[in-house]
Amino acid sequence: MTYSGELSKLLDSAGAKEGSVISLTIDGKEYIGTIMPHGGNDEDIIVIKMKNGYYAGFRTDKRTKIKVIEQPSAKVKKAIERKPKKGLPNITLIGTGGTIGSRSDGTSVSPGLSADSLLDLMPELSDVANMKAKDLISEFSENIGVKHWQEMAKAAEEEMNAGASAVIISHGTDTIGYTAAALSFMLAELSGPVVLVGSQRSTDRPSSDAYGNLLASVRFCVSSKAAGVYVIMHDSMNDDSFAVHRGTRVRKMHTSRRDAFRSINTIPVAHIDGTGKITFRDEVPRPSPRTKAATKMCKDAVLLHYYPEMDPALFKNVIMGSKGVVIAGTGLGHVSDAMASLLKGAIDKGIVVAMTSQCINGPTGMNIYQTGRELQRIGVIPMGDMLPETAYVKLMWALANAKDPKEAMRKNVSYETSERRTVDVVW
Amino acid sequence: MTYSGELSKLLDSAGAKEGSVISLTIDGKEYIGTIMPHGGNDEDIIVIKMKNGYYAGFRTDKRTKIKVIEQPSAKVKKAIERKPKKGLPNITLIGTGGTIGSRSDGTSVSPGLSADSLLDLMPELSDVANMKAKDLISEFSENIGVKHWQEMAKAAEEEMNAGASAVIISHGTDTIGYTAAALSFMLAELSGPVVLVGSQRSTDRPSSDAYGNLLASVRFCVSSKAAGVYVIMHDSMNDDSFAVHRGTRVRKMHTSRRDAFRSINTIPVAHIDGTGKITFRDEVPRPSPRTKAATKMCKDAVLLHYYPEMDPALFKNVIMGSKGVVIAGTGLGHVSDAMASLLKGAIDKGIVVAMTSQCINGPTGMNIYQTGRELQRIGVIPMGDMLPETAYVKLMWALANAKDPKEAMRKNVSYETSERRTVDVVW
Repeated sequence: MTYSGELSKLLDSAGAKEGSVISLTIDGKEYIGTIMPHGGNDEDIIVIKMKNGYYAGFRTDKRTKIKVIEQPSAKVKKAIERKPKKGLPNITLIGTGGTIGSRSDGTSVSPGLSADSLLDLMPELSDVANMKAKDLISEFSENIGVKHWQEMAKAAEEEMNAGASAVIISHGTDTIGYTAAALSFMLAELSGPVVLVGSQRSTDRPSSDAYGNLLASVRFCVSSKAAGVYVIMHDSMNDDSFAVHRGTRVRKMHTSRRDAFRSINTIPVAHIDGTGKITFRDEVPRPSPRTKAATKMCKDAVLLHYYPEMDPALFKNVIMGSKGVVIAGTGLGHVSDAMASLLKGAIDKGIVVAMTSQCINGPTGMNIYQTGRELQRIGVIPMGDMLPETAYVKLMWALANAKDPKEAMRKNVSYETSERRTVDVVW
Repeated sequence: MTYSGELSKLLDSAGAKEGSVISLTIDGKEYIGTIMPHGGNDEDIIVIKMKNGYYAGFRTDKRTKIKVIEQPSAKVKKAIERKPKKGLPNITLIGTGGTIGSRSDGTSVSPGLSADSLLDLMPELSDVANMKAKDLISEFSENIGVKHWQEMAKAAEEEMNAGASAVIISHGTDTIGYTAAALSFMLAELSGPVVLVGSQRSTDRPSSDAYGNLLASVRFCVSSKAAGVYVIMHDSMNDDSFAVHRGTRVRKMHTSRRDAFRSINTIPVAHIDGTGKITFRDEVPRPSPRTKAATKMCKDAVLLHYYPEMDPALFKNVIMGSKGVVIAGTGLGHVSDAMASLLKGAIDKGIVVAMTSQCINGPTGMNIYQTGRELQRIGVIPMGDMLPETAYVKLMWALANAKDPKEAMRKNVSYETSERRTVDVVW
């Protein structure tokens, strides 16, 4: 996308174009950087790449001063054009929105940065892979649900089977963990990696983590045949460590830090350092010859966190109206006697009830206390060290795909739980 | 409590009594330790304190061999009798059940260890304080709710105003954080510390953390006039560090580890090392002349965690039937557009809606994205870095006690949020 409107006139009068290194003076402050392609809908925003590698978007007006320091070299232009290079793997970037696909207008952050623009902002990616952009949706991830997961799984299947060695999906961080879990169950057969990537700061902001996360994702996809669904995000506050989290084991553990994502009850599958060196820490599935998406999901599942005074009367319709319930219980997997009675009624009616822990860390242990034993006796299924969010997504999948959803919930399908299921030791 | 039944005969025939150091042989294995008073209802369990300081309970039968190694000294006997000593502060231990008030029968763990027995098991406590035991209830904490919180607050008020310099409440760990938050709001005027303490392994088991946690609690109460409600638990896997968590900021972050408890979005108020040395890390309120419990709570509040595909139709009755809702939203405090519409309807009806984050760490930031701005516009109140669980308890308190519950939710009442409320910087 090129610049237009007043900003385009300003650039023309300074002799500046995409790739030009410019001095930009706004409100008396000078910024030096290379002009990147226009990234969104707002005509007045100029995006420059600064010396430190960060991208920054600035609102321009008539008082803005632009001075060309150096004109673009042929190399930069070529990168921007993204001509396919022989010998490089094909990777498709699927855009779904989120902060990584957003710009800030100085007041709030809004979606509207296409996958194509995202690649334009990061021409270096074309040095390691033939990048193709495909925009699927443009949503903040709090609005993403089953139909989007299905679209993503189908798009990944299509791209992989059409010659992509890997698919990278840019996604909002808020629910990237839920989506990663859903794709893990939907894409049981994969010919290569499917990586979900996001950013905690919008891509057009100085010190956005988008660039680092996307570069690490591309590097992982280029160097590894690891089948499976992963989330790749910063693993430290610097740009020197990125974690490859398994799609079923990852959780957003901080509202704003760039290292917000953590593998829970397990280690990340791999780490990628700032130079692109990959260190595997755990096993990954071998690639299948073809990618196959099985996207059926049952929406009649709910996820409920237990709390003191949780009123069974109030939640009766929620639970009885569903086909399956995941409870995030207290401690080793407990609820009050009152809620246990309601769950018994649900199980007697054929509703699947699975237990996780709101502690997040550590496995359920439902043989240790009377409460846990009684819950198991009435048919509550302990989920071991599975995340409540993953158990919920798995339940939607099991209800739609398994002959015996209860049995499926107990089986380890996509590394969603550690092999040692429950703590059988009595303390 | 003394031993009875077959075990009592076995002890008599060996000449063993409380305080005797014995050799105990069970299934061919020998254990050496001091006989502690009988801790529960099961006649066949003998409790001994071993050399390493741990307490162990063993099931005895006719094949059990007991041999006296040393008879009790006067000192041990005196400690067991708990005669008040001049100059020592008076501390009341209020028993409510939980693992710390439980015994294992070899198969599962059940309540039934009185506060009195708990003190009997730890005679050393009487060297630093005049300990008084008071049993209030005997419940696992998943069954504890408003009426128990009210009983605890009133009991604490009574004991403090009757001369106790501090009150220690033994409590199940599952919901100790919720109770601590409730007591923090109920006991705004306190003449000294109220400490909640629990254990992750039952008190009669070898390597129980009960002893360390209770000793650290007593030491804190003896050395500090810090008013306020705290939770004191292990801060490491060893017995050399204990954290004093503020009642409104503490969360159980692991199902089973002894260092499961963490202060979230803040540091612990203090640390206590293995020798009893206390290091304060944050301010504590000054004691009031008298303790006053204000125990009104409104039960018409709910705590809901958002998840993808959360169906507003399913949760309409839950939300519309309440007077207040705490949402654990995604990321900086978001829900789907569909759920936002339901919340708008609730707010228009006068229902208080407060937003926290399911990330647990980090503050809400509802000025950054369109979603957060829109939620604030319709009247959703951002809770900053307050825990979802604390926000829920605070809402019950605010609905019952504040003229303007919405205003009360925004005010920092008991250190439940850091002073810097929301992240106003746009990234």
